[in-house]
Amino acid sequence: MKQKIDTLITKALIITMDSTHRIIEQGAIAVDHDSILDIGKNDEITARYEAAQTIDASSSIAMPGLINTHTHLATAIFRGLVEDMQLSPWLQEVWRYEKAIMDGATVGVSSRLAMLESVLGGVTCAVDMYWFPIETAAMAQRIGFRLVNGPVFIEGTDLPDGMSFQQREKYAEEFVERATDTPLIEPMLMPHSTYTDRPEMLARVKRMADKYGLMVNIHAAETALERDEVRTRFGKTPIRLLHDLGFLDGRALLAHCVHVDDEEIALLAGTASVAHNPMSNLKLASGIAPLARMVDAGVRVCLGTDGAQSGNDLDMWLAMRLAAVLQKCANGDPTLFRAEDAVAMATIEAAKAIGLGNKIGSLEPGKKADIVIVHLDSPHLTPMYDPYAQLVYAVGREDVATVLIDGKVVVRDRMPVTIDPRECIASVNKISERVRAKVPLSARRIEKPHI
Amino acid sequence: MKQKIDTLITKALIITMDSTHRIIEQGAIAVDHDSILDIGKNDEITARYEAAQTIDASSSIAMPGLINTHTHLATAIFRGLVEDMQLSPWLQEVWRYEKAIMDGATVGVSSRLAMLESVLGGVTCAVDMYWFPIETAAMAQRIGFRLVNGPVFIEGTDLPDGMSFQQREKYAEEFVERATDTPLIEPMLMPHSTYTDRPEMLARVKRMADKYGLMVNIHAAETALERDEVRTRFGKTPIRLLHDLGFLDGRALLAHCVHVDDEEIALLAGTASVAHNPMSNLKLASGIAPLARMVDAGVRVCLGTDGAQSGNDLDMWLAMRLAAVLQKCANGDPTLFRAEDAVAMATIEAAKAIGLGNKIGSLEPGKKADIVIVHLDSPHLTPMYDPYAQLVYAVGREDVATVLIDGKVVVRDRMPVTIDPRECIASVNKISERVRAKVPLSARRIEKPHI
Repeated sequence: MKQKIDTLITKALIITMDSTHRIIEQGAIAVDHDSILDIGKNDEITARYEAAQTIDASSSIAMPGLINTHTHLATAIFRGLVEDMQLSPWLQEVWRYEKAIMDGATVGVSSRLAMLESVLGGVTCAVDMYWFPIETAAMAQRIGFRLVNGPVFIEGTDLPDGMSFQQREKYAEEFVERATDTPLIEPMLMPHSTYTDRPEMLARVKRMADKYGLMVNIHAAETALERDEVRTRFGKTPIRLLHDLGFLDGRALLAHCVHVDDEEIALLAGTASVAHNPMSNLKLASGIAPLARMVDAGVRVCLGTDGAQSGNDLDMWLAMRLAAVLQKCANGDPTLFRAEDAVAMATIEAAKAIGLGNKIGSLEPGKKADIVIVHLDSPHLTPMYDPYAQLVYAVGREDVATVLIDGKVVVRDRMPVTIDPRECIASVNKISERVRAKVPLSARRIEKPHI
Repeated sequence: MKQKIDTLITKALIITMDSTHRIIEQGAIAVDHDSILDIGKNDEITARYEAAQTIDASSSIAMPGLINTHTHLATAIFRGLVEDMQLSPWLQEVWRYEKAIMDGATVGVSSRLAMLESVLGGVTCAVDMYWFPIETAAMAQRIGFRLVNGPVFIEGTDLPDGMSFQQREKYAEEFVERATDTPLIEPMLMPHSTYTDRPEMLARVKRMADKYGLMVNIHAAETALERDEVRTRFGKTPIRLLHDLGFLDGRALLAHCVHVDDEEIALLAGTASVAHNPMSNLKLASGIAPLARMVDAGVRVCLGTDGAQSGNDLDMWLAMRLAAVLQKCANGDPTLFRAEDAVAMATIEAAKAIGLGNKIGSLEPGKKADIVIVHLDSPHLTPMYDPYAQLVYAVGREDVATVLIDGKVVVRDRMPVTIDPRECIASVNKISERVRAKVPLSARRIEKPHI
């Protein structure tokens, strides 16, 4: 008698990203409820189980869902609005738009668009730092998207949600209580940075994180300017400040870390994970993060896209490809950061970096069924000699055929299952009309054609 | 009475890339035979012409076809085969595979795959440097792809076509005679580089180019090693050598130019165009070419993908995006190389760089109808504030809906018209089996996991 289960994925080339990076040719995956029940050769698995639905993954790779470890989902509404500017005036401009447009409702609509883009591109989980996280978490649950998010802490009151720091602390407690034991939602506290939050405020956030046993996500050392300003104001660099405040205790996720010296890297080894955002760092001219030195020193690194307002899209395939080739070039060594390393950074290393290494990031029995099926039968994926090289250097978001999150199909044959794309796009376009109307676009275009 | 024409493209947002970079909202393009007859507001154009076919480009951008100014099309057969290696052993390995597999027939089949990938991604013209150019040109004509190619000159006889240098000169004359006045084919002579061809041989090629009034395409200053080796052997760098040989006379297209000093850049201003290949240069750790300094000095720069054996795909959207963001980052200035500049480098600047500025590269009456229609109605392209930013930072090859080359539709609603994709892919996979069987894959995997 075959065991009855929910879903069988059959005939796939399976990239497991388990501890031995096992690859299974002609493999199958048995999924029941929200989890992977079994995985192995197609013949053996299909002989053992009878499934309510079977997904034929011939000519396809099945792999763990991609994990975007740094983004600001709702800023998709500002995609391409403010371009070709220096980071500091760029941020001022962006914040002006945010203040004018963002509330709980617009954040919900905008983050839905970003989640739609994410799942269509094979991203099954994102770490989202943005205002109104309760609304974003509610949207993620409706869509079936795995979301790591939580309250943002930033000083000042001239912000989209209009809260004081004290109100933020109260809101945070409410968020954490709601999110605890909620399917798909993983709470994390999100102080913005050492340049927007004074040390005493950061210390308060860290105390709250410790009280609830939560990880902390913060921007750190994104630009040389930030590093220098923080050093001038507080007598130490962002990384040293975070170290002295006790943030580097194994439960820290730091976004960027472009400008870090060897001593700072040593402080991060084993104590923090770094979310590297290659596209955003290039486009804003922040620099190329020293990933090779970090990895050599034992720092865990993972990948993100940053928000679509800086990186313009949420393409984790591009993040993998860029991370690998930038490190090769920056270190003058094309043998560094192999394709397999890039896949690890976007899957199992990312899962470990956000404290979910026992739950997601690889295809193994007992783990949540967050699975991406990549169709290989395209001209730009022909021929195939090495699946890792294909995934990192040639596959694009358009090759993602089917996506499961928590055992449920959210994309099938390139079509979203839990979101109406036309309605989603139309509702975002409605808000974008308000963006155009509400804020003078004086600063939008710098008349400095280069060519 | 309306004038009868072949094709109307209606209701498009038209990016012309003409001398004023005119943008036409709700525009239309009238195409007759191989050329653009008229362009303007939709109402006016549709009132004037009656077309045999009308292409509705609502919610779409119509723009000039992308021009890939440096590639080796047939190497698509080696996509992902040799990875994560140093350039020099990488080249040795690649050449070993080439020698084992490549002949006129396999080049035809492999370059057809590359042209299929190209047109699906909105590339309407490519500069191809590869063995058996007669077979590639014949394939381009069958498919309807605009191809700039020609005989390769390299010393040594242990090469796929087994020719001596003298035989190459004879073959070149035959190629040029065939290609002259042949639709879609533009001949160019292709000496490989200053590290594979001695100065006296390069001088012979240049004399032949002058005799036929042809441009010359050559690799130059791709790596620091190449520059240093050439300087050691011949007492001057590749660029100075080319200058002394008379190559820099306004009819030179140099691929790469990563390692060039200010004096060399001055030599290139007004005398040569540079084909920049950002993905290949990063992946092989060659470096980031000093495009900003080149542009400031008056050197014309354009973009390429290099072959799929080094860059893994032929994605000119990625080339645009990378070129822009790499220059921002490398120069520490996010205001440099705006999206509009990147589009220019892939269209009109490219056309001028390859001597076809009067024929292609912009949408204007009298130019050949090489037109790409990009569909904008996707989550990752929502919302849209600035068409250039969208094209460079968010659009991908999958957004290309319809492509015309020389007035003929070669891709319609994302499906190739002149190639059977299944047959094309199957025939390449057959050759790739021979690649696997023929050459021991000892060198394929370097066991140096980084993470």
